[in-house]
Amino acid sequence: MANWIWYPGDFEIYHGMKQNLEREERGFFWPAYWKLAQCRRSVKFSNSYSLKEETAFTAAAMGRGYVNVKWEPPLEPDGTRPPYPKWIEKKYRFGEVITCPAKDVTIDVIVGNLEGLPCAFIEGEVIHSDGSWKAGDYSSGMLPVGCNKDYTRAGQNPMVFEYTSKLCKPVEAEEIDGGVLFDFGKEITAETIIRYPELVKELTLCYGESRAEALDVELCYLKQHLMAEGNDRLYGAFESELVYRTRLRAFRYIFIPEGDVAKEIELKADYKYVDFPRRSKFACQDEKLNRIWEVSEETFRLASGIFFIDGIKRDRWIWSGDAYQSYFINQYLFYDADICKRTILALRGNDPIPQHINTILDYSLYWLISIENYYNMTGDLEFVRMIHPKMESMMEYCRNQVDEHGFIYGRPEDWVFIDWSDIDREGTISEEQFLLARSYQAMIAVGRLLGKDTGEFEQLFAELKKNIWSFYWDEAQGAFIDSFSSGRRKVSRHSNIFAVLFEYTTKEETESILKNVLLNDNITAITTPYFKFYELELLSKLGQYDQVLETIRSYWGGMLDRGASTFWEEYKPDEPEEEQYGMYGDKYGKSLCHAWGASPIYLIGRYFIGLRPTSAAYETFEVEPQLGIFGEFSCELPVNEGTLRIKLEAGKLEVSTDKEGGLLKLGAETFELKRGETLTVSV
Amino acid sequence: MANWIWYPGDFEIYHGMKQNLEREERGFFWPAYWKLAQCRRSVKFSNSYSLKEETAFTAAAMGRGYVNVKWEPPLEPDGTRPPYPKWIEKKYRFGEVITCPAKDVTIDVIVGNLEGLPCAFIEGEVIHSDGSWKAGDYSSGMLPVGCNKDYTRAGQNPMVFEYTSKLCKPVEAEEIDGGVLFDFGKEITAETIIRYPELVKELTLCYGESRAEALDVELCYLKQHLMAEGNDRLYGAFESELVYRTRLRAFRYIFIPEGDVAKEIELKADYKYVDFPRRSKFACQDEKLNRIWEVSEETFRLASGIFFIDGIKRDRWIWSGDAYQSYFINQYLFYDADICKRTILALRGNDPIPQHINTILDYSLYWLISIENYYNMTGDLEFVRMIHPKMESMMEYCRNQVDEHGFIYGRPEDWVFIDWSDIDREGTISEEQFLLARSYQAMIAVGRLLGKDTGEFEQLFAELKKNIWSFYWDEAQGAFIDSFSSGRRKVSRHSNIFAVLFEYTTKEETESILKNVLLNDNITAITTPYFKFYELELLSKLGQYDQVLETIRSYWGGMLDRGASTFWEEYKPDEPEEEQYGMYGDKYGKSLCHAWGASPIYLIGRYFIGLRPTSAAYETFEVEPQLGIFGEFSCELPVNEGTLRIKLEAGKLEVSTDKEGGLLKLGAETFELKRGETLTVSV
Repeated sequence: MANWIWYPGDFEIYHGMKQNLEREERGFFWPAYWKLAQCRRSVKFSNSYSLKEETAFTAAAMGRGYVNVKWEPPLEPDGTRPPYPKWIEKKYRFGEVITCPAKDVTIDVIVGNLEGLPCAFIEGEVIHSDGSWKAGDYSSGMLPVGCNKDYTRAGQNPMVFEYTSKLCKPVEAEEIDGGVLFDFGKEITAETIIRYPELVKELTLCYGESRAEALDVELCYLKQHLMAEGNDRLYGAFESELVYRTRLRAFRYIFIPEGDVAKEIELKADYKYVDFPRRSKFACQDEKLNRIWEVSEETFRLASGIFFIDGIKRDRWIWSGDAYQSYFINQYLFYDADICKRTILALRGNDPIPQHINTILDYSLYWLISIENYYNMTGDLEFVRMIHPKMESMMEYCRNQVDEHGFIYGRPEDWVFIDWSDIDREGTISEEQFLLARSYQAMIAVGRLLGKDTGEFEQLFAELKKNIWSFYWDEAQGAFIDSFSSGRRKVSRHSNIFAVLFEYTTKEETESILKNVLLNDNITAITTPYFKFYELELLSKLGQYDQVLETIRSYWGGMLDRGASTFWEEYKPDEPEEEQYGMYGDKYGKSLCHAWGASPIYLIGRYFIGLRPTSAAYETFEVEPQLGIFGEFSCELPVNEGTLRIKLEAGKLEVSTDKEGGLLKLGAETFELKRGETLTVSV
Repeated sequence: MANWIWYPGDFEIYHGMKQNLEREERGFFWPAYWKLAQCRRSVKFSNSYSLKEETAFTAAAMGRGYVNVKWEPPLEPDGTRPPYPKWIEKKYRFGEVITCPAKDVTIDVIVGNLEGLPCAFIEGEVIHSDGSWKAGDYSSGMLPVGCNKDYTRAGQNPMVFEYTSKLCKPVEAEEIDGGVLFDFGKEITAETIIRYPELVKELTLCYGESRAEALDVELCYLKQHLMAEGNDRLYGAFESELVYRTRLRAFRYIFIPEGDVAKEIELKADYKYVDFPRRSKFACQDEKLNRIWEVSEETFRLASGIFFIDGIKRDRWIWSGDAYQSYFINQYLFYDADICKRTILALRGNDPIPQHINTILDYSLYWLISIENYYNMTGDLEFVRMIHPKMESMMEYCRNQVDEHGFIYGRPEDWVFIDWSDIDREGTISEEQFLLARSYQAMIAVGRLLGKDTGEFEQLFAELKKNIWSFYWDEAQGAFIDSFSSGRRKVSRHSNIFAVLFEYTTKEETESILKNVLLNDNITAITTPYFKFYELELLSKLGQYDQVLETIRSYWGGMLDRGASTFWEEYKPDEPEEEQYGMYGDKYGKSLCHAWGASPIYLIGRYFIGLRPTSAAYETFEVEPQLGIFGEFSCELPVNEGTLRIKLEAGKLEVSTDKEGGLLKLGAETFELKRGETLTVSV
């Protein structure tokens, strides 16, 4: 099978650049405010073949260039190599049938593309493009090409990502405020199709994730005014004289204030999505919890496309901190390695590094840690080997801003984010040090996989941990403080969560943090679902299942009670309804479908069902369900290419899996899970 | 006046990338084989205004984005600044009329462009885009924008370079070989326009710089087969049902072997060129020399477009070594600073440097030297200040490959070129050391202009010169050798030419080199017009006028005798006619219109007319004509914005100029040239 091939990482960088230029707000585009990494524009692809017989191939490409076929000239009668010419070679056009003689040939395919992604597709019985080819950009050595399973046909264009498409009609049309409000029943990312009966008439599309937003003609976030003539091609185009198709936008509602026109036209939505298979299921006796799982899955599916993006209406950008959480949720939902690889590559861009990922210091560190996590999920050593040089340069980039204590600091151009919370950000802050320590561990873990000497990072890790304790542990408060240089000695939840989550604390320290921080109402609460992810994970890890479940029910359940059909970027239970969609000083600035809102899937799968790999790629794994929490339940979760099925019904726990290597843990007991057999335990 | 604005250097980098992807050969494209520098794809433009009254503006852009207008909120009643919000700001669409209040406003224009050059055009009475704006790429500070005098209207597109256009008809159509040979009378770079009478028919366009090439249907370098259907849009397009327009190609002849079709169609050429004003003239009693000047000018005009390119049929790439010579010729012909700036910026690309310019070590060094030369011609301190950081990083890049003697060496990935001649290239070679020394001088000269401390480079220069003499001067041969490590102690002309040309040698050494190398037939002759440029310049400098003139007459005159209407990439007087168009193993591989073939203009202007600036931008200048060489002559040459006119007729030398600061030198005598007056001297 032939693949479209490109310079490794460039497909992802090209689509990442595209993705980060797609954000729309009220009729203008809002390019991401960091330096966009670019794909190469001129690439050489190469492979060598020892041909035993003549063979033919053709090459296609996106861009301009040619094919060069060469072999060494025959030896002189005395067996020596003639000094000149070094090669017998010939150039060919793309599309030509090229016949190669039965020799040791080298094929070079040269592609330049001023505007897009240079890539090639070579078809032939023996000679065809696949992962055995190498690519170069003329300034460094040849590397194994990039390719993927989605681009295997000559007629495809790797610059176009192929979504699955589904035409949707509104489920309801309500006449209101002199116009018509169309409800598509659920949030989708779609191109809107307007079919006019016999004459194009002016109208306005007011989109809303919520009903309120769509009806707010003045302030709704996405809006397009369609004139009979002069439609801006950036926002869509006429498909035929009477059919207009908009660009991709996320919405549930569309309000057309021009009621007469709205009643004439036919409105459809061409929903575009990646059809990740449904690999997980969860149901228990608590309908609200079931609904939370469903809405989490819906939310996560919508925010998972070419890449893990933050939310679907607003930024649509690839944010490293958001993606980091998506990797965890993905592991318990789609188990899709490709979207992880695409996201990791797009986020990282090229060397040299111009700035921290998304300009955020912590986001570079999450990126480093994500590689270890990716390996643990997939066991994909090939990708780890490919990305390792970029881990090394990223670590070097980070290490350039480390002080005499080994603490990483933010430079004026860096955003030291962690969370929107009121962290004491003076000087070096403990939150970043824990992430740096965890990053050293990632370097060690990945380095060992590749047989590298990891001594340097082991030493850095040990020294950093020692200094964190010296400078940030506050004995009186029994917790880590944010900053030691400010003198305020403020304790926030964030660094204490990292300390315990990364398993850096002793039993006593953990207990102290649990009591003095996590369960202490005097410490400012976490309000974003973003950091709540880590807090709830930690509470789960510490066995606080009831509290976690209560929070899931009240916080995520609270959004459902307010009519959410996907989970939000932020939720403040006390906020009045008329303000609930606002954020960043914008009445509809809040994203109502935000990837990090889907964390209940991870929490339930990882901690309540208790499934975890005990070696890379679930070669071995354990499931340690918390019984008596939901009552009866049934659940399916991916274990790499296999599935774990677990059901509690009528006092019996049934566990089965089609994957080798599983163990069931129930209290002190351990049961081996045999492939293809159902284990039944009375509980 | 408003200008289109872009990130500084990006216009040139974008067009450079385009230029280096344009090479065509026998129906395929041949992208340049070095890493192409890329323009940024996402840029922020910014400016601040203290508005005394309300004012309006609009913004247009190539790409996607928005305009942000902001000002500081009013002070509190107690005169303090409120902590929040930091700014009052509002975003606008491109094309909107934006009204700014009478405040201290900051305007940001955000532009992303996935495929092209992000640039903006802001129009308004007070607020408009010009050189006072700044640009940033989000990863480093804001820099003064790039802009130029060619893009000052909203309707323009800076991604399209606006050539002057002239429709040409063939001057002759000859029926031959069953087809028709069209002769356009002289070489042009043109789009071919074919108008069919009533039906499109298949035909083949066989192009030729020479008659022989066009008639060689099999082997001609540029050829397009036009089918009735399915024409590849890369090579051209139908303008109407019956009119096809090809892409830009250089040719004098077009042969259409399909004679019947050729007789039916109408064939035209849309000649595209930059209309540099005619600033120089030369005529003497030697008609051949006059013709050499004319053909040199014709050659040079053809090879001067957006950039100085090598030749017009084949590479059409921007080569630093070729451009370096073009800068000299330009100074005596167009005196156009803009094309120099464009070429310098395009060649240099971005930091960090991925490889030597065009992969060639010497070409990076020429680039460094060219900045000093550019300043000496123009006095353009603004450009020098803008480019200086890139000189510094280029010098640092070069200094990374210097050995313990201070000698620069070629790394495996570097092409140590100098010339195609048989130089002894083992180890470090003296040619590169002279160029490095000259580059240090450029760093010193430019550094001083900008008030920098140049001590480091002065020391490096002194040490390098000392070591060159210790290792490369061969007392026995009275000349510099190429390599000291090979043991062959081979003397080539090249390094000896540099040594004297750069004025590094003593009078005795110069005389020794003249005798033992330059005038020594045992030392391999220079065969390329490329290096002949330096050899003839040096011989001129050393007063060998007769020999130089004899060479110009025989070498360039020899090409004329062979029917050249532009000067060639290479000329070997002994080569049989049937091989004269061949190069690089290709029967028509030789470029017959190559910029470096135009060097007689420089040699005549600089050494025979003897015009030279004695301070930057011809603030002061001298003219020291060599009388009695051509007999009577008249000549006009640019002296910055002015003109020098000089005429020898009937024993009288008449010199006039509309520029202050000139001196006429005749032997031991010096005459002041007064602006607007004609000085007449009997000679």
